[in-house]
Amino acid sequence: MASRKDRAGAAAAGKANVAELRAEVQEFKRRRILEEARELFFAHGYEATTLDAIAEALDVTKPFLYSYFRNKSEILNAICEIGITKSIEALDEALAMKLAPPEKLRLIVETVTTIIITNQKYIVVYIREEKNLESKEARYLMGLRRDFDQRLANLLEEGAASGDFDVEDAALAAVSISGMITWVANWYRPGRHLQTDVVSHTIRLVDRMVSKRPRR
Amino acid sequence: MASRKDRAGAAAAGKANVAELRAEVQEFKRRRILEEARELFFAHGYEATTLDAIAEALDVTKPFLYSYFRNKSEILNAICEIGITKSIEALDEALAMKLAPPEKLRLIVETVTTIIITNQKYIVVYIREEKNLESKEARYLMGLRRDFDQRLANLLEEGAASGDFDVEDAALAAVSISGMITWVANWYRPGRHLQTDVVSHTIRLVDRMVSKRPRR
Repeated sequence: MASRKDRAGAAAAGKANVAELRAEVQEFKRRRILEEARELFFAHGYEATTLDAIAEALDVTKPFLYSYFRNKSEILNAICEIGITKSIEALDEALAMKLAPPEKLRLIVETVTTIIITNQKYIVVYIREEKNLESKEARYLMGLRRDFDQRLANLLEEGAASGDFDVEDAALAAVSISGMITWVANWYRPGRHLQTDVVSHTIRLVDRMVSKRPRR
Repeated sequence: MASRKDRAGAAAAGKANVAELRAEVQEFKRRRILEEARELFFAHGYEATTLDAIAEALDVTKPFLYSYFRNKSEILNAICEIGITKSIEALDEALAMKLAPPEKLRLIVETVTTIIITNQKYIVVYIREEKNLESKEARYLMGLRRDFDQRLANLLEEGAASGDFDVEDAALAAVSISGMITWVANWYRPGRHLQTDVVSHTIRLVDRMVSKRPRR
C-alpha cells in the first residue's frame, strides 16, 4: 500500500504533469494560430487579412484568439520574430562551442540556412510586412538583425586574427553573408531544390568568400 | 536669304525637335509620377496609398495621372519593373562585350549593385508588394528574374569551361549572387555606407565565390 508521503508525491507529480501538459497545449494552440495567420498574410497580405478570417480558418471564435494575442498587430509581431530569434539562438550556440572560427562559421551557415528554409513563409511575411509593424517592434527586430550581423562580423575578425580568414571589411562581409542566406527564403522552391543541396552549396560559397584557403 | 528648301528643312527639324521635346517632357512627367508613388508606397504601403494621395503629392489632378497610367495597379507594375529591367539591360550589355568571363562578371556585379543602390526604394517596394501585382505581371517579372539568373549561370559555366571559375552548381551560384546583390537594397544606408565601398566589396566577394584564383 502506498504511504501518505508517496501519495502526496504522486499528486504533486500529477499536478506538475498537468501544468506541463497545459503549457504544451497552450504553446501548440499559439503556434497553430501563427501558422494559420502566416498562411493568410502570405496569400493576401497583412492589411487584407482580418482577425475574423484567421478565426474562421482555425474554426475557432475571436475570443479564443484574444486569449493568445491582444490584436492582429501582436500576431504580426510574433510571426516576424520567429526567423531572427531562432537564427540568433543558433548563432549564439555555435559561437559558444569549442571550435575554430571556420568550423563555427560553417555551423552557423548550416543551421541558419536550414532555419530560413524551414521557416520560409515567416521570413517572407516579415520582409514584406515590416512596414506594418509598430515602430517599436520594427526597431526591436532591426536591432536583433544588427546584433546578428555584429556577432558574425566579430567571428570574421576573430578568424582573420587567427589567420583562417582573409576579410577586408568584416561588417560588410557579415551583412552580405546574412543577406545571401536570408534571400534564400525568396527563391527556394521545395519542388525544385533539395534542401541539403542549398545548404551545402551556401556553406561552400560563404567558405570561399572569407577563407584564406577555401576547402574546395 | 534662306532658300525655300532650307526653310522647309528648318521647319522639319523644328517639328522633330518639338516632337522630341514633347516626348522628353512626357517621360519626365511619367518619371515624376513614379517617384512620388514610390515614396508613398514605400512609406505607407501600396494598399493604403490612393491615387488621390499621389495626385495631391504631385499637386496635379487625377485625370493627369490617368493620361499616363490606367490605374494604381499600372503604376505599381511600372515601379516593380524598374530594377529588374535595368539590371537585365546592364547584364546583356556586359555579356555582349569582348571580355573574359571574370571581367564580364566583375562588370555585371559593379553595374547591377550600383543599379540596386540607386534604385533602392523601387526594389524594396517590389519585394514588399510583389503579392499585390496582378498575377500576369508578377509572372512576367519573375520570368525576367529567372532570365537574369539563367544568363548569369551561363556566364559562370562559360568561365568554368575556360578554366577561370571553379563553380560546383552554376544555377545555385547565380541565384545566390543575385540574391546577395538584391539584398543590398534592404540594408544599404546612404549615411552609413559609401556606395563605392559597397560596390567594390561586393565585386570582391563574388570574385572569391567563383574564381579559381581570386584576385585578392
